[in-house]
Amino acid sequence: MNELTIRLETKSQIPLYEQIYIYIKNDIQSRKIKCGDKLPSTRALAKHLDISRSTVELAYEQLVAEGYVEARAYKGFFVTKIDDLYQWKQAEETVLIKEEKKEIEYAYDFTPNGIDLNSFPYRVWRKLAKDVLADDKATFFKAGNSQGEYELRDTLCHYLYQSRGVNCEAEQIIVGAGNDYLLMLLQMILKGKHRIAFENPTYRQAYRLFQQLDYETRTVEMDEKGMRVDELRKVQADIAYVMPSHQYPLGIIMPIQRRMELLRWAAEKDGRYIIEDDYDSEFRYKGKPIPALQGYDRNDKVIYIGTFSKSIAPAIRVSYLVLPKPLLKVYKEKGRFLNSTVSRVDQQIIHQFIQQGYYERHLNKMRGVYKSRHDVMINSLKPLLKKCKISGENAGVHLLLTFPSQVAEIELIERAKSIGIKVYGLSAYDVCTEKKLNPTILLGYANMQEEEIKEGVQQLISAWRELF
Amino acid sequence: MNELTIRLETKSQIPLYEQIYIYIKNDIQSRKIKCGDKLPSTRALAKHLDISRSTVELAYEQLVAEGYVEARAYKGFFVTKIDDLYQWKQAEETVLIKEEKKEIEYAYDFTPNGIDLNSFPYRVWRKLAKDVLADDKATFFKAGNSQGEYELRDTLCHYLYQSRGVNCEAEQIIVGAGNDYLLMLLQMILKGKHRIAFENPTYRQAYRLFQQLDYETRTVEMDEKGMRVDELRKVQADIAYVMPSHQYPLGIIMPIQRRMELLRWAAEKDGRYIIEDDYDSEFRYKGKPIPALQGYDRNDKVIYIGTFSKSIAPAIRVSYLVLPKPLLKVYKEKGRFLNSTVSRVDQQIIHQFIQQGYYERHLNKMRGVYKSRHDVMINSLKPLLKKCKISGENAGVHLLLTFPSQVAEIELIERAKSIGIKVYGLSAYDVCTEKKLNPTILLGYANMQEEEIKEGVQQLISAWRELF
Repeated sequence: MNELTIRLETKSQIPLYEQIYIYIKNDIQSRKIKCGDKLPSTRALAKHLDISRSTVELAYEQLVAEGYVEARAYKGFFVTKIDDLYQWKQAEETVLIKEEKKEIEYAYDFTPNGIDLNSFPYRVWRKLAKDVLADDKATFFKAGNSQGEYELRDTLCHYLYQSRGVNCEAEQIIVGAGNDYLLMLLQMILKGKHRIAFENPTYRQAYRLFQQLDYETRTVEMDEKGMRVDELRKVQADIAYVMPSHQYPLGIIMPIQRRMELLRWAAEKDGRYIIEDDYDSEFRYKGKPIPALQGYDRNDKVIYIGTFSKSIAPAIRVSYLVLPKPLLKVYKEKGRFLNSTVSRVDQQIIHQFIQQGYYERHLNKMRGVYKSRHDVMINSLKPLLKKCKISGENAGVHLLLTFPSQVAEIELIERAKSIGIKVYGLSAYDVCTEKKLNPTILLGYANMQEEEIKEGVQQLISAWRELF
Repeated sequence: MNELTIRLETKSQIPLYEQIYIYIKNDIQSRKIKCGDKLPSTRALAKHLDISRSTVELAYEQLVAEGYVEARAYKGFFVTKIDDLYQWKQAEETVLIKEEKKEIEYAYDFTPNGIDLNSFPYRVWRKLAKDVLADDKATFFKAGNSQGEYELRDTLCHYLYQSRGVNCEAEQIIVGAGNDYLLMLLQMILKGKHRIAFENPTYRQAYRLFQQLDYETRTVEMDEKGMRVDELRKVQADIAYVMPSHQYPLGIIMPIQRRMELLRWAAEKDGRYIIEDDYDSEFRYKGKPIPALQGYDRNDKVIYIGTFSKSIAPAIRVSYLVLPKPLLKVYKEKGRFLNSTVSRVDQQIIHQFIQQGYYERHLNKMRGVYKSRHDVMINSLKPLLKKCKISGENAGVHLLLTFPSQVAEIELIERAKSIGIKVYGLSAYDVCTEKKLNPTILLGYANMQEEEIKEGVQQLISAWRELF
């Protein structure tokens, strides 16, 4: 083959060399030019197309780089042998269905996972973001410490000691992009097969995650003090996942005796650990927050995990893991090479947010906001008091209504739905099929104004009237 | 026990109720108050301390909440039985050793992992951050889509098609906080035991990660076309991890025949996959970037992973995974419940950065900056051309110098070190002990000004003169 007649568009956006490259590549792909064929020399083609030789050379170089053509010394350019040559798949002409499902519009949504984003300190956050990004600080865009920036960990360390009684050093803290990630990292540190025991009902997200990570999962019955340690012994787990300061979803606070019992269980055997998920302990409306279990641990048995999802905002994606020292050692050997999952800019904003006292102020404010909503809800629920039991109050951002067993939970939910109110059933948190939980409705109040709570609860009471 | 003489500090920052609570708790912990003891009634203690009864009640409630004390109806408050009661561990008085190691100060550091942060578009980034945070947009602080925001994925989808020839829909993309996290997620999707084959030498981070994830790892020899498929067959792996567009660290571009061969290997058996790590293909200084392997895949065998670490900044912590459709289905069943690891604010900034054309401009600018540095380095290296072979040029941000086998790599590194210059040996990327690699030095240029490159290379040449 000595000639290639390529129609070049001199006015096109596509450079000439690229037009030549595309033309020849297409011809090779469609077998119009056969393998082994010799391409015209760069000089000949340049002359033929009346363009500069360097343009042709660039096109040939690209074909060589991608392997369609090979250069043979003293001989020229030849089409290479390619067995299954097919073109790029054409972009399929499926109409992209946006993934948003049409959700039912509810007038009131008593989600137990809400937070009040109207109270988010936007102004402060903007200011801090601006400060951090000011002055073209290259440092914040360099790869950072894999555990999280030392400054942030140091600040967290003090915060956790002061407000949660957590006893640790900055080097025990790993900052990560959410609990899910940190638990995945923990699996890498713990290695091997484990049997993990959960309270039931529990935080489903963690339960599912450990199932996906191929842990054997077990559920352990709770009494009014939380996870029963005698039952925990029966399931022969080596890890217990608990939320002692405010169990989710039941709101149970584990008292000191049970905590000690649990710590004793862990201390009895090498390799036993307690994962303490301290997800929303910041919000307690009577007295002080309950100190973390970690603070009582003398045997390096408690793995503490906390998050800013509830106390700042879910989309912040920053959580922290406090590793007991023996596991820290393993992490340093096996996991430290992993890059941090939180951007340094975000870490710096949070560091400043805590350091400059904004976090404390924000928490105090939110405690006030949520307490008022909590009180309004308790008040509004008074007419129901003879029909059901209220529990889980005085802390967190939701409470529970437990009904007599003859009332069907699903019926309560459906009646609410029929008048445009979304409520949540406890069975959604049930991960054990053996024992039936009493019909229970969760009512969250973080995401609702006081007036909405009053109105919503009133409507609920009317809708449920016939059921009991 | 009827009386407790508590010295209250009325001027203290600590509220009175808390002082009472702490006093009693300490007395219980130190066994000064025995278990079973009755506390004075709230009325009696209030009178005794001359404070309001509600203050005492609040203190008692806190003790009850934490389980130190129990309330018995009609009888009063009693200290509960706690077996191993110990206090919080006192914060250990170890002086916190800041983790920063003292590094040797190098005058020039030819790191192959650098990026030029002086060229980071700080002003634009600040503006976009400000815009995103403006108007108190609560949406960006709500929990978002677990795969990443649809807008960003849609934008990525177009970008990847245009610039990398990647063929996918937005729903196949998962945005995550870095490659490490996305590969951990991938392990959850692939499930079970796998044998994964790496090129050797390779990107050590991914190799180590898969080892930690309990994959069987194998290395496969490369020739000048990249991973040898005949050798891949021999190791009987089911997953191949490759960097076809620009192998790290060797800089090899896999030609079309080898790509087809690799795709054929994957298509031959169910469960075989290719992970295509397309980490820095944006930077090619001759002709167009080489299209991704993924674009040629007709059998849903290529898992594509890309990152903004090289093209924007390492601390950005945003990568993206493109799943073939069968794996997408598995992800939706097993992994979709996991929360996104990237904050919505950051996602929105990146979305706007691409959408408004800043990314393209930034890439073009960086290509220019890096090409100049690349050319300066090639030029400066001319005096060495008789002594060693240059490879891996024309793309990426580093090149390789391969020396005759009688020169020791370590000696080259040490000589450089002795004059304050840091260079990197290929053996650091060697994950296979069987076959010895030729002595090779990696020289990166992204992080150095042109003058520094000239000066640094000149000094290197003098320092190495006696070695060959």
